[in-house]
Amino acid sequence: MMQLIDLSHPLAHGQAVFPGDPAIEILARHPAGYRITELRLSTHQGTHLDAPFHFFDDGVTVDRIPLDRLYGPASLIDFGPLAPGAPITVDMLRPHAALFRPGARVIYRTGWDRLFGRPEFFVNYPSLTLEAARWIAAQRIALLGMDTPGPSEDWLEVHRALLAAEIVIVESLANLDQLPPAFTFIGFPLKIEGRDGSPIRAVAEVGPGVGRKE
Amino acid sequence: MMQLIDLSHPLAHGQAVFPGDPAIEILARHPAGYRITELRLSTHQGTHLDAPFHFFDDGVTVDRIPLDRLYGPASLIDFGPLAPGAPITVDMLRPHAALFRPGARVIYRTGWDRLFGRPEFFVNYPSLTLEAARWIAAQRIALLGMDTPGPSEDWLEVHRALLAAEIVIVESLANLDQLPPAFTFIGFPLKIEGRDGSPIRAVAEVGPGVGRKE
Repeated sequence: MMQLIDLSHPLAHGQAVFPGDPAIEILARHPAGYRITELRLSTHQGTHLDAPFHFFDDGVTVDRIPLDRLYGPASLIDFGPLAPGAPITVDMLRPHAALFRPGARVIYRTGWDRLFGRPEFFVNYPSLTLEAARWIAAQRIALLGMDTPGPSEDWLEVHRALLAAEIVIVESLANLDQLPPAFTFIGFPLKIEGRDGSPIRAVAEVGPGVGRKE
Repeated sequence: MMQLIDLSHPLAHGQAVFPGDPAIEILARHPAGYRITELRLSTHQGTHLDAPFHFFDDGVTVDRIPLDRLYGPASLIDFGPLAPGAPITVDMLRPHAALFRPGARVIYRTGWDRLFGRPEFFVNYPSLTLEAARWIAAQRIALLGMDTPGPSEDWLEVHRALLAAEIVIVESLANLDQLPPAFTFIGFPLKIEGRDGSPIRAVAEVGPGVGRKE
């Protein structure tokens, strides 16, 4: 029996944003007879993905990421609840090396999503070491996802290492504790012309035989 | 061989909006060392979906639409290029009645997407008659999609007929001319808390055996 698991946090008016990002505003509008909403938010609000253009002038923009990178078999690495500021090291990744095939989608859980929506979410979160990010980049996976607001508090260098390898980074995922080790990941960005990222509705399909082969 | 087809129009700064909707603004921001974007747009801009709350105070909101309505086997009805203002009638639907099973996803093509991005897109588009909308509502399908900005210029009554039946409406689809009769539809909304609709990245998966059964 197939089942869909929602890997996305809700977008809510006034929720905490990454330091320096614009506020999120969800503004009700009521023309006669129906209702619409004006959204104002960063492309990096809530559950979202980063395109290489986020850090590189000549990087791929979010509307041009090949769709097949964002939909297909994926693997979970569950680091259980990690302590605030815990480093995620190459030694922690190495036991899972078989998952890091070229083109693979790998998502890791730290348990940090319990703080989502509060300012503390953005401070002292478990982080890839720069060495670990470079190790991942060298494997040429297609997509790396996590339940923290980014892959590392050493954000500049770690983002650069991953995005230079054209790895799509999916940040602030939810409900990773509900995932089996193998599943199908679905997470397409809005087709925002020529820009750097997009909020997404990330979803996992789970069930017998799902996600175990390409 | 599976293939993904992008059914979404690009979101671009200043593109034409539905009359009365807020402007779409895609605003580049450049903190030190990287770039982000502030989005300002209606929940009904470009390729998007409508939740029942769009018209009904007690209707399901976009964050609560069951995900399995938005992902799965779907059918295309190709009406070829229809003339401006052409009515889509019950007589035109009846030959395709077998597709309208309870829970089905049905998408129809009018050819109107060629005008997307221009103000003319929103005027005199091919439209379901109210009788046709009520016929569809009675079939209790899960999702109805189209390449026009809405199901009908008789927008109030037709939206009410479809949304009262809890049919998700997917509007302003692109590239429907590339679709086979049966495919897998994927189109999840952003998880916007308690609101009426969402821009989406709609995608079709096509290939041998795809979309032919539930």
